[in-house]
Amino acid sequence: MKEKITIVKVGGAVVEDEPQLEQLLRDFITIDGPKILVHGGGRRATKIAERLGIETHMVNGRRITDEAMLEVVTMVYGGLVNKNVVARLQALDCDALGLTGADANIILSHKRPPLSVATITPDGLPSGDTVDFGFVGDVDRAAGAKISHFIKAGLVPVIAPLTHDGLGHMLNTNADTMASETAKAMAAVGYDVTLIFAFEKPGVLRNADDDNSVIKTINRSDFEAYKADGTISGGMLPKIENALAAVESGVSRVIITLATAIDGRHGTIITR
Amino acid sequence: MKEKITIVKVGGAVVEDEPQLEQLLRDFITIDGPKILVHGGGRRATKIAERLGIETHMVNGRRITDEAMLEVVTMVYGGLVNKNVVARLQALDCDALGLTGADANIILSHKRPPLSVATITPDGLPSGDTVDFGFVGDVDRAAGAKISHFIKAGLVPVIAPLTHDGLGHMLNTNADTMASETAKAMAAVGYDVTLIFAFEKPGVLRNADDDNSVIKTINRSDFEAYKADGTISGGMLPKIENALAAVESGVSRVIITLATAIDGRHGTIITR
Repeated sequence: MKEKITIVKVGGAVVEDEPQLEQLLRDFITIDGPKILVHGGGRRATKIAERLGIETHMVNGRRITDEAMLEVVTMVYGGLVNKNVVARLQALDCDALGLTGADANIILSHKRPPLSVATITPDGLPSGDTVDFGFVGDVDRAAGAKISHFIKAGLVPVIAPLTHDGLGHMLNTNADTMASETAKAMAAVGYDVTLIFAFEKPGVLRNADDDNSVIKTINRSDFEAYKADGTISGGMLPKIENALAAVESGVSRVIITLATAIDGRHGTIITR
Repeated sequence: MKEKITIVKVGGAVVEDEPQLEQLLRDFITIDGPKILVHGGGRRATKIAERLGIETHMVNGRRITDEAMLEVVTMVYGGLVNKNVVARLQALDCDALGLTGADANIILSHKRPPLSVATITPDGLPSGDTVDFGFVGDVDRAAGAKISHFIKAGLVPVIAPLTHDGLGHMLNTNADTMASETAKAMAAVGYDVTLIFAFEKPGVLRNADDDNSVIKTINRSDFEAYKADGTISGGMLPKIENALAAVESGVSRVIITLATAIDGRHGTIITR
Protein backbone atom coordinates (compact mmCIF):
# COMPACT_ATOMS: atom_id res chain seq x y z
CA MET A 1 0.00 0.00 0.00
CA LYS A 2 1.25 3.46 -0.86
CA GLU A 3 2.27 5.79 1.95
CA LYS A 4 -0.09 8.70 2.36
CA ILE A 5 1.13 12.29 2.27
CA THR A 6 -0.88 15.48 2.69
CA ILE A 7 0.15 18.75 1.08
CA VAL A 8 -1.60 21.86 2.35
CA LYS A 9 -1.42 25.10 0.41
CA VAL A 10 -2.33 28.17 2.37
CA GLY A 11 -2.62 31.63 0.87
CA GLY A 12 -1.26 34.95 2.02
CA ALA A 13 -4.54 36.10 3.53
CA VAL A 14 -4.39 33.30 6.11
CA VAL A 15 -0.62 33.38 6.73
CA GLU A 16 -0.83 37.09 7.47
CA ASP A 17 -3.81 36.92 9.83
CA GLU A 18 -2.57 35.98 13.27
CA PRO A 19 -5.58 34.06 14.67
CA GLN A 20 -6.22 32.28 11.35
CA LEU A 21 -2.56 31.29 11.03
CA GLU A 22 -2.49 29.98 14.58
CA GLN A 23 -5.53 27.79 13.98
CA LEU A 24 -4.26 26.62 10.61
CA LEU A 25 -0.91 25.54 12.08
CA ARG A 26 -2.61 23.76 14.97
CA ASP A 27 -4.88 21.92 12.53
CA PHE A 28 -1.98 21.20 10.21
CA ILE A 29 0.10 19.44 12.87
CA THR A 30 -2.78 17.10 13.70
CA ILE A 31 -2.79 15.71 10.15
CA ASP A 32 -1.67 12.07 10.35
CA GLY A 33 1.53 11.02 8.64
CA PRO A 34 3.89 12.89 6.32
CA LYS A 35 2.88 16.38 5.38
CA ILE A 36 4.06 19.48 3.54
CA LEU A 37 2.94 23.08 3.91
CA VAL A 38 3.12 25.45 0.93
CA HIS A 39 2.49 29.10 1.69
CA GLY A 40 1.90 32.37 -0.12
CA GLY A 41 2.59 35.85 1.19
CA GLY A 42 1.57 38.24 -1.56
CA ARG A 43 -0.21 40.78 0.62
CA ARG A 44 2.78 41.08 2.90
CA ALA A 45 5.07 41.49 -0.12
CA THR A 46 2.85 44.26 -1.44
CA LYS A 47 2.96 46.06 1.90
CA ILE A 48 6.75 45.80 2.28
CA ALA A 49 7.20 46.89 -1.36
CA GLU A 50 5.04 49.92 -0.70
CA ARG A 51 7.12 50.84 2.35
CA LEU A 52 10.24 50.52 0.18
CA GLY A 53 8.68 52.80 -2.45
CA ILE A 54 8.29 49.98 -4.96
CA GLU A 55 5.02 49.90 -6.88
CA THR A 56 3.12 46.65 -7.27
CA HIS A 57 1.74 45.86 -10.73
CA MET A 58 -0.55 42.90 -11.25
CA VAL A 59 -1.85 41.46 -14.53
CA ASN A 60 -4.69 39.00 -14.25
CA GLY A 61 -3.99 38.55 -10.55
CA ARG A 62 -0.31 37.78 -11.16
CA ARG A 63 2.52 39.96 -9.91
CA ILE A 64 4.88 41.64 -12.35
CA THR A 65 8.29 40.89 -10.82
CA ASP A 66 11.05 43.31 -11.80
CA GLU A 67 14.42 43.18 -10.09
CA ALA A 68 13.34 45.32 -7.14
CA MET A 69 10.19 43.25 -6.65
CA LEU A 70 12.21 40.02 -6.87
CA GLU A 71 14.27 41.24 -3.92
CA VAL A 72 11.07 41.96 -2.01
CA VAL A 73 9.47 38.57 -2.64
CA THR A 74 12.74 36.76 -1.91
CA MET A 75 12.91 38.60 1.43
CA VAL A 76 9.26 38.28 2.32
CA TYR A 77 8.42 34.77 1.10
CA GLY A 78 11.80 33.11 1.73
CA GLY A 79 12.64 35.02 4.91
CA LEU A 80 9.88 36.76 6.82
CA VAL A 81 6.90 34.50 6.14
CA ASN A 82 8.74 31.19 5.76
CA LYS A 83 10.90 31.53 8.88
CA ASN A 84 8.05 32.69 11.05
CA VAL A 85 5.91 29.74 9.99
CA VAL A 86 8.85 27.39 10.59
CA ALA A 87 9.55 28.83 14.06
CA ARG A 88 5.89 28.55 15.00
CA LEU A 89 5.62 24.97 13.82
CA GLN A 90 8.77 24.16 15.80
CA ALA A 91 7.09 25.65 18.87
CA LEU A 92 4.27 23.15 18.26
CA ASP A 93 6.83 20.29 18.20
CA CYS A 94 6.55 19.93 14.46
CA ASP A 95 10.02 19.55 12.93
CA ALA A 96 9.58 22.05 10.10
CA LEU A 97 12.19 22.73 7.44
CA GLY A 98 11.80 25.89 5.36
CA LEU A 99 12.55 25.47 1.67
CA THR A 100 12.45 27.38 -1.58
CA GLY A 101 12.90 25.67 -4.93
CA ALA A 102 16.62 26.53 -4.78
CA ASP A 103 17.21 24.72 -1.49
CA ALA A 104 18.47 21.22 -2.24
CA ASN A 105 17.46 22.07 -5.81
CA ILE A 106 13.93 20.82 -5.14
CA ILE A 107 12.10 22.93 -7.74
CA LEU A 108 13.76 24.13 -10.90
CA SER A 109 12.08 26.61 -13.21
CA HIS A 110 12.80 28.88 -16.15
CA LYS A 111 12.05 32.55 -16.50
CA ARG A 112 8.68 33.00 -18.18
CA PRO A 113 9.03 34.57 -21.63
CA PRO A 114 6.81 37.58 -22.37
CA LEU A 115 3.33 36.26 -23.10
CA SER A 116 0.86 37.61 -25.60
CA VAL A 117 -1.97 39.28 -23.77
CA ALA A 118 -4.51 37.00 -25.42
CA THR A 119 -3.13 33.92 -23.63
CA ILE A 120 -3.38 35.44 -20.21
CA THR A 121 -6.37 37.75 -20.30
CA PRO A 122 -8.93 37.02 -23.03
CA ASP A 123 -10.83 40.19 -22.35
CA GLY A 124 -8.76 43.11 -21.29
CA LEU A 125 -5.73 44.75 -22.80
CA PRO A 126 -5.57 45.29 -26.59
CA SER A 127 -4.73 42.05 -28.41
CA GLY A 128 -1.30 41.75 -29.98
CA ASP A 129 0.36 43.22 -26.88
CA THR A 130 2.70 41.13 -24.79
CA VAL A 131 3.19 41.14 -21.03
CA ASP A 132 6.61 40.54 -19.51
CA PHE A 133 6.06 39.15 -16.03
CA GLY A 134 9.75 39.61 -15.31
CA PHE A 135 11.48 37.32 -12.84
CA VAL A 136 8.68 34.78 -12.67
CA GLY A 137 9.51 31.09 -12.89
CA ASP A 138 7.49 28.45 -14.72
CA VAL A 139 8.29 25.10 -13.14
CA ASP A 140 10.36 22.57 -15.10
CA ARG A 141 10.51 19.87 -12.47
CA ALA A 142 10.06 19.23 -8.76
CA ALA A 143 12.42 16.67 -7.25
CA GLY A 144 10.11 14.26 -5.43
CA ALA A 145 12.98 12.01 -4.31
CA LYS A 146 14.74 14.93 -2.62
CA ILE A 147 11.60 16.03 -0.83
CA SER A 148 10.89 12.41 0.12
CA HIS A 149 14.35 12.23 1.70
CA PHE A 150 13.42 15.07 4.06
CA ILE A 151 10.07 13.44 4.81
CA LYS A 152 11.73 10.13 5.67
CA ALA A 153 14.03 12.01 8.05
CA GLY A 154 10.90 13.08 9.93
CA LEU A 155 10.98 16.64 8.68
CA VAL A 156 8.00 18.70 7.57
CA PRO A 157 8.85 20.82 4.52
CA VAL A 158 7.47 24.36 4.56
CA ILE A 159 7.73 25.61 0.99
CA ALA A 160 7.86 29.28 -0.01
CA PRO A 161 6.67 30.30 -3.50
CA LEU A 162 10.15 30.83 -4.94
CA THR A 163 12.10 28.71 -7.39
CA HIS A 164 15.47 29.03 -9.11
CA ASP A 165 16.61 28.75 -12.70
CA GLY A 166 19.75 26.71 -12.12
CA LEU A 167 21.77 29.67 -13.36
CA GLY A 168 22.00 31.45 -10.03
CA HIS A 169 18.75 33.41 -10.03
CA MET A 170 15.75 33.14 -7.78
CA LEU A 171 12.36 33.37 -9.50
CA ASN A 172 8.92 34.23 -8.17
CA THR A 173 6.50 31.33 -8.61
CA ASN A 174 2.80 31.12 -7.93
CA ALA A 175 2.09 29.27 -4.67
CA ASP A 176 -0.79 27.20 -6.13
CA THR A 177 1.60 26.04 -8.85
CA MET A 178 4.28 25.21 -6.25
CA ALA A 179 1.71 23.09 -4.41
CA SER A 180 0.45 21.18 -7.47
CA GLU A 181 3.95 20.59 -8.83
CA THR A 182 5.07 19.32 -5.43
CA ALA A 183 1.97 17.09 -5.23
CA LYS A 184 2.62 15.62 -8.69
CA ALA A 185 6.28 15.02 -7.84
CA MET A 186 5.37 13.19 -4.65
CA ALA A 187 2.84 11.05 -6.56
CA ALA A 188 5.56 10.26 -9.10
CA VAL A 189 7.80 8.85 -6.36
CA GLY A 190 5.03 6.60 -5.08
CA TYR A 191 3.01 8.47 -2.48
CA ASP A 192 -0.77 8.48 -2.19
CA VAL A 193 -1.12 12.28 -2.31
CA THR A 194 -3.88 14.47 -0.93
CA LEU A 195 -3.48 18.10 -1.96
CA ILE A 196 -5.51 20.58 0.07
CA PHE A 197 -6.05 24.14 -1.12
CA ALA A 198 -7.01 26.09 2.00
CA PHE A 199 -8.74 29.36 1.19
CA GLU A 200 -11.44 31.72 2.38
CA LYS A 201 -14.48 29.73 1.17
CA PRO A 202 -15.77 26.37 2.42
CA GLY A 203 -15.28 24.80 -1.03
CA VAL A 204 -16.55 25.09 -4.58
CA LEU A 205 -20.02 26.56 -4.24
CA ARG A 206 -23.09 25.83 -6.31
CA ASN A 207 -24.28 29.31 -5.39
CA ALA A 208 -21.52 31.84 -4.75
CA ASP A 209 -23.66 33.62 -2.13
CA ASP A 210 -24.45 30.49 -0.15
CA ASP A 211 -21.64 28.97 1.90
CA ASN A 212 -23.86 25.96 2.51
CA SER A 213 -23.95 25.08 -1.18
CA VAL A 214 -20.57 23.26 -1.27
CA ILE A 215 -20.32 20.74 -4.11
CA LYS A 216 -19.00 17.56 -2.46
CA THR A 217 -17.08 16.00 -5.35
CA ILE A 218 -16.10 17.04 -8.85
CA ASN A 219 -14.48 14.92 -11.54
CA ARG A 220 -13.65 15.90 -15.13
CA SER A 221 -17.12 15.17 -16.50
CA ASP A 222 -18.86 16.94 -13.58
CA PHE A 223 -16.60 19.92 -14.22
CA GLU A 224 -17.48 20.08 -17.91
CA ALA A 225 -21.17 19.99 -17.02
CA TYR A 226 -20.86 22.68 -14.31
CA LYS A 227 -18.87 24.81 -16.72
CA ALA A 228 -21.44 24.36 -19.48
CA ASP A 229 -24.41 25.27 -17.30
CA GLY A 230 -22.55 28.21 -15.66
CA THR A 231 -22.55 26.78 -12.13
CA ILE A 232 -18.77 27.23 -12.03
CA SER A 233 -17.25 30.36 -13.56
CA GLY A 234 -14.65 33.08 -13.17
CA GLY A 235 -11.57 32.58 -10.97
CA MET A 236 -12.74 29.14 -9.85
CA LEU A 237 -12.26 27.76 -13.40
CA PRO A 238 -8.42 27.84 -13.48
CA LYS A 239 -8.30 26.60 -9.85
CA ILE A 240 -10.32 23.50 -10.76
CA GLU A 241 -8.46 23.05 -14.06
CA ASN A 242 -5.20 22.94 -12.05
CA ALA A 243 -6.72 20.52 -9.57
CA LEU A 244 -7.95 18.22 -12.36
CA ALA A 245 -4.54 18.40 -14.04
CA ALA A 246 -3.00 17.31 -10.72
CA VAL A 247 -5.33 14.32 -10.28
CA GLU A 248 -4.84 13.39 -13.92
CA SER A 249 -1.06 13.38 -13.20
CA GLY A 250 -1.30 10.91 -10.35
CA VAL A 251 -2.33 12.98 -7.33
CA SER A 252 -5.04 10.93 -5.57
CA ARG A 253 -7.30 13.81 -4.62
CA VAL A 254 -7.42 17.58 -4.39
CA ILE A 255 -9.56 19.20 -1.71
CA ILE A 256 -10.62 22.82 -1.94
CA THR A 257 -11.69 23.96 1.50
CA LEU A 258 -11.82 26.66 4.17
CA ALA A 259 -8.49 27.36 5.88
CA THR A 260 -10.12 26.42 9.18
CA ALA A 261 -11.33 23.05 7.85
CA ILE A 262 -8.32 21.17 6.51
CA ASP A 263 -9.14 17.86 8.18
CA GLY A 264 -10.00 16.22 4.85
CA ARG A 265 -13.66 15.85 5.84
CA HIS A 266 -14.77 19.25 4.57
CA GLY A 267 -14.74 21.11 1.28
CA THR A 268 -14.92 19.95 -2.31
CA ILE A 269 -13.01 16.82 -3.33
CA ILE A 270 -11.68 16.75 -6.86
CA THR A 271 -10.82 13.30 -8.18
CA ARG A 272 -10.31 11.57 -11.51
CA MET B 1 39.85 8.18 11.13
CA LYS B 2 37.45 11.01 11.65
CA GLU B 3 35.71 12.48 8.62
CA LYS B 4 36.86 16.00 7.83
CA ILE B 5 34.42 18.88 7.54
CA THR B 6 35.15 22.52 6.72
CA ILE B 7 32.98 25.34 7.98
CA VAL B 8 33.49 28.71 6.32
CA LYS B 9 32.11 31.87 7.87
CA VAL B 10 31.89 34.82 5.55
CA GLY B 11 30.86 38.28 6.66
CA GLY B 12 28.44 40.74 5.18
CA ALA B 13 31.12 42.83 3.47
CA VAL B 14 32.02 39.88 1.23
CA VAL B 15 28.51 38.53 0.69
CA GLU B 16 27.38 41.94 -0.48
CA ASP B 17 30.27 42.61 -2.85
CA GLU B 18 29.54 40.88 -6.15
CA PRO B 19 33.07 40.03 -7.36
CA GLN B 20 34.23 38.99 -3.88
CA LEU B 21 31.15 36.79 -3.38
CA GLU B 22 31.64 35.15 -6.78
CA GLN B 23 35.25 34.29 -6.00
CA LEU B 24 34.43 33.14 -2.49
CA LEU B 25 31.73 30.76 -3.74
CA ARG B 26 34.02 29.39 -6.47
CA ASP B 27 36.75 28.78 -3.88
CA PHE B 28 34.25 27.35 -1.43
CA ILE B 29 33.01 24.67 -3.83
CA THR B 30 36.56 23.43 -4.45
CA ILE B 31 37.00 22.56 -0.76
CA ASP B 32 37.28 18.76 -0.54
CA GLY B 33 34.64 16.83 1.35
CA PRO B 34 31.73 17.97 3.49
CA LYS B 35 31.38 21.69 4.03
CA ILE B 36 29.12 24.31 5.51
CA LEU B 37 28.86 28.01 4.72
CA VAL B 38 27.77 30.47 7.43
CA HIS B 39 27.05 34.00 6.25
CA GLY B 40 26.37 37.43 7.65
CA GLY B 41 24.51 40.26 5.98
CA GLY B 42 24.54 43.16 8.40
CA ARG B 43 25.32 45.91 5.94
CA ARG B 44 22.48 44.84 3.69
CA ALA B 45 20.14 44.73 6.68
CA THR B 46 21.18 48.25 7.65
CA LYS B 47 20.48 49.50 4.12
CA ILE B 48 17.07 47.84 3.86
CA ALA B 49 16.18 49.08 7.36
CA GLU B 50 17.10 52.60 6.32
CA ARG B 51 14.89 52.36 3.23
CA LEU B 52 12.07 51.17 5.49
CA GLY B 53 12.63 54.14 7.80
CA ILE B 54 13.95 51.96 10.61
CA GLU B 55 16.99 53.30 12.48
CA THR B 56 19.92 51.01 13.18
CA HIS B 57 21.43 51.17 16.68
CA MET B 58 24.61 49.32 17.49
CA VAL B 59 26.28 48.84 20.87
CA ASN B 60 29.83 47.53 20.80
CA GLY B 61 29.40 46.48 17.19
CA ARG B 62 26.25 44.48 17.97
CA ARG B 63 22.85 45.34 16.53
CA ILE B 64 19.99 46.31 18.82
CA THR B 65 17.13 44.23 17.46
CA ASP B 66 13.68 45.59 18.23
CA GLU B 67 10.59 44.04 16.62
CA ALA B 68 10.90 46.07 13.42
CA MET B 69 14.60 45.24 13.09
CA LEU B 70 13.87 41.55 13.73
CA GLU B 71 11.56 41.59 10.69
CA VAL B 72 14.32 43.20 8.65
CA VAL B 73 17.03 40.72 9.62
CA THR B 74 14.66 37.78 9.17
CA MET B 75 13.92 39.03 5.65
CA VAL B 76 17.45 39.97 4.72
CA TYR B 77 19.48 37.16 6.32
CA GLY B 78 16.94 34.35 5.94
CA GLY B 79 15.54 35.45 2.58
CA LEU B 80 17.53 37.83 0.43
CA VAL B 81 21.10 36.89 1.30
CA ASN B 82 20.56 33.22 2.09
CA LYS B 83 18.51 32.39 -0.99
CA ASN B 84 20.78 34.25 -3.35
CA VAL B 85 23.82 32.41 -2.00
CA VAL B 86 21.94 29.10 -2.27
CA ALA B 87 20.84 29.79 -5.86
CA ARG B 88 24.38 30.74 -6.85
CA LEU B 89 25.89 27.66 -5.27
CA GLN B 90 23.29 25.55 -7.09
CA ALA B 91 24.40 27.19 -10.34
CA LEU B 92 27.91 25.95 -9.50
CA ASP B 93 26.54 22.40 -9.06
CA CYS B 94 26.86 22.60 -5.30
CA ASP B 95 23.74 21.15 -3.67
CA ALA B 96 23.17 23.95 -1.16
CA LEU B 97 20.45 23.93 1.47
CA GLY B 98 19.62 27.23 3.17
CA LEU B 99 19.00 26.99 6.89
CA THR B 100 18.33 29.16 9.89
CA GLY B 101 18.47 27.79 13.41
CA ALA B 102 14.70 27.23 13.25
CA ASP B 103 14.87 24.96 10.21
CA ALA B 104 14.94 21.37 11.39
CA ASN B 105 15.52 22.92 14.80
CA ILE B 106 19.27 22.96 14.20
CA ILE B 107 20.15 25.87 16.51
CA LEU B 108 18.10 26.73 19.55
CA SER B 109 18.70 29.91 21.53
CA HIS B 110 17.16 32.08 24.19
CA LYS B 111 16.52 35.79 24.12
CA ARG B 112 19.45 37.61 25.67
CA PRO B 113 18.47 39.32 28.93
CA PRO B 114 19.44 42.99 29.30
CA LEU B 115 23.16 43.14 30.09
CA SER B 116 24.92 45.56 32.34
CA VAL B 117 26.99 47.92 30.25
CA ALA B 118 30.16 46.92 32.11
CA THR B 119 30.03 43.38 30.72
CA ILE B 120 29.78 44.48 27.11
CA THR B 121 31.69 47.73 26.87
CA PRO B 122 34.22 48.31 29.63
CA ASP B 123 34.93 51.85 28.54
CA GLY B 124 31.93 53.67 27.18
CA LEU B 125 28.50 54.22 28.59
CA PRO B 126 28.10 55.07 32.28
CA SER B 127 28.49 51.98 34.44
CA GLY B 128 25.39 50.61 36.14
CA ASP B 129 23.32 51.06 32.97
CA THR B 130 21.94 48.03 31.19
CA VAL B 131 21.55 47.45 27.47
CA ASP B 132 18.63 45.50 26.10
CA PHE B 133 19.73 44.01 22.78
CA GLY B 134 16.14 43.03 22.10
CA PHE B 135 15.41 39.99 19.93
CA VAL B 136 18.94 38.63 20.01
CA GLY B 137 19.48 34.94 20.65
CA ASP B 138 22.28 33.43 22.72
CA VAL B 139 22.79 29.86 21.56
CA ASP B 140 21.73 27.01 23.83
CA ARG B 141 22.64 24.15 21.52
CA ALA B 142 23.36 23.30 17.90
CA ALA B 143 22.11 19.91 16.73
CA GLY B 144 25.16 18.34 15.12
CA ALA B 145 23.35 15.08 14.36
CA LYS B 146 20.70 16.92 12.39
CA ILE B 147 23.25 18.90 10.40
CA SER B 148 25.23 15.70 9.87
CA HIS B 149 22.13 14.09 8.39
CA PHE B 150 22.00 16.78 5.70
CA ILE B 151 25.73 16.41 5.07
CA LYS B 152 25.39 12.64 4.64
CA ALA B 153 22.62 13.27 2.10
CA GLY B 154 25.19 15.17 0.04
CA LEU B 155 23.80 18.59 0.89
CA VAL B 156 25.81 21.70 1.71
CA PRO B 157 24.17 23.71 4.51
CA VAL B 158 24.19 27.48 4.04
CA ILE B 159 23.41 28.94 7.44
CA ALA B 160 21.94 32.40 8.03
CA PRO B 161 22.61 34.17 11.35
CA LEU B 162 19.16 33.56 12.79
CA THR B 163 18.05 31.17 15.50
CA HIS B 164 14.77 30.44 17.25
CA ASP B 165 13.74 30.18 20.86
CA GLY B 166 11.55 27.10 20.58
CA LEU B 167 8.57 29.25 21.54
CA GLY B 168 7.77 30.42 18.03
CA HIS B 169 10.10 33.41 17.74
CA MET B 170 13.05 34.00 15.46
CA LEU B 171 16.08 35.64 17.08
CA ASN B 172 19.00 37.54 15.59
CA THR B 173 22.29 35.77 16.31
CA ASN B 174 25.85 36.84 15.56
CA ALA B 175 27.25 35.02 12.52
CA ASP B 176 30.64 34.31 14.15
CA THR B 177 28.78 32.68 17.03
CA MET B 178 26.64 30.65 14.61
CA ALA B 179 29.83 29.41 12.95
CA SER B 180 31.63 28.45 16.17
CA GLU B 181 28.57 26.80 17.67
CA THR B 182 28.05 24.81 14.47
CA ALA B 183 31.74 23.85 14.45
CA LYS B 184 31.60 22.68 18.07
CA ALA B 185 28.43 20.69 17.38
CA MET B 186 30.00 18.94 14.38
CA ALA B 187 33.08 18.12 16.47
CA ALA B 188 30.79 16.69 19.14
CA VAL B 189 29.27 14.25 16.63
CA GLY B 190 32.69 13.03 15.57
CA TYR B 191 33.95 15.21 12.74
CA ASP B 192 37.49 16.56 12.34
CA VAL B 193 36.43 20.19 12.03
CA THR B 194 38.24 23.07 10.36
CA LEU B 195 36.53 26.40 10.97
CA ILE B 196 37.56 29.22 8.63
CA PHE B 197 36.74 32.83 9.39
CA ALA B 198 37.01 34.63 6.06
CA PHE B 199 37.40 38.37 6.45
CA GLU B 200 39.08 41.43 4.94
CA LYS B 201 42.61 40.82 6.30
CA PRO B 202 45.07 38.02 5.43
CA GLY B 203 45.11 36.79 9.03
CA VAL B 204 46.10 37.93 12.50
CA LEU B 205 48.81 40.51 11.91
CA ARG B 206 51.90 41.19 14.02
CA ASN B 207 51.72 44.73 12.68
CA ALA B 208 48.24 46.00 11.81
CA ASP B 209 49.64 48.12 8.97
CA ASP B 210 51.57 45.30 7.33
CA ASP B 211 49.56 42.64 5.51
CA ASN B 212 52.73 40.58 5.20
CA SER B 213 53.06 40.22 8.97
CA VAL B 214 50.59 37.33 9.32
CA ILE B 215 51.18 35.23 12.45
CA LYS B 216 51.15 31.62 11.18
CA THR B 217 49.90 29.81 14.28
CA ILE B 218 48.51 30.81 17.65
CA ASN B 219 47.72 28.60 20.60
CA ARG B 220 46.53 29.60 24.08
CA SER B 221 49.99 30.37 25.44
CA ASP B 222 51.02 32.30 22.29
CA PHE B 223 47.83 34.30 22.65
CA GLU B 224 48.50 35.17 26.28
CA ALA B 225 52.00 36.34 25.32
CA TYR B 226 50.77 38.42 22.33
CA LYS B 227 48.10 39.91 24.52
CA ALA B 228 50.60 40.75 27.28
CA ASP B 229 53.07 42.44 24.93
CA GLY B 230 50.30 44.28 23.03
CA THR B 231 50.91 42.56 19.66
CA ILE B 232 47.24 41.58 19.59
CA SER B 233 44.67 44.08 20.77
CA GLY B 234 41.25 45.62 20.12
CA GLY B 235 38.62 43.78 18.07
CA MET B 236 40.96 40.89 17.35
CA LEU B 237 40.94 39.86 21.03
CA PRO B 238 37.35 38.54 21.20
CA LYS B 239 37.76 36.93 17.75
CA ILE B 240 40.73 34.90 18.94
CA GLU B 241 39.10 34.20 22.30
CA ASN B 242 36.17 32.67 20.40
CA ALA B 243 38.52 30.69 18.17
CA LEU B 244 40.43 29.34 21.19
CA ALA B 245 37.15 28.45 22.90
CA ALA B 246 36.19 26.49 19.76
CA VAL B 247 39.45 24.53 19.61
CA GLU B 248 39.25 23.92 23.35
CA SER B 249 35.75 22.47 22.72
CA GLY B 250 36.92 19.92 20.16
CA VAL B 251 37.21 21.87 16.90
CA SER B 252 40.52 20.76 15.34
CA ARG B 253 41.61 24.13 14.02
CA VAL B 254 40.33 27.63 13.35
CA ILE B 255 41.78 29.61 10.47
CA ILE B 256 41.46 33.37 10.27
CA THR B 257 42.12 34.42 6.68
CA LEU B 258 41.32 36.66 3.73
CA ALA B 259 37.99 35.92 2.03
CA THR B 260 39.91 35.25 -1.18
CA ALA B 261 42.24 32.73 0.50
CA ILE B 262 40.10 30.04 2.11
CA ASP B 263 42.10 27.07 0.82
CA GLY B 264 43.43 26.26 4.29
CA ARG B 265 47.00 27.14 3.28
CA HIS B 266 46.75 30.85 4.13
CA GLY B 267 45.99 32.91 7.17
CA THR B 268 46.49 32.32 10.87
CA ILE B 269 45.84 28.84 12.26
CA ILE B 270 44.55 28.72 15.80
CA THR B 271 45.00 25.36 17.53
CA ARG B 272 45.10 23.94 21.04
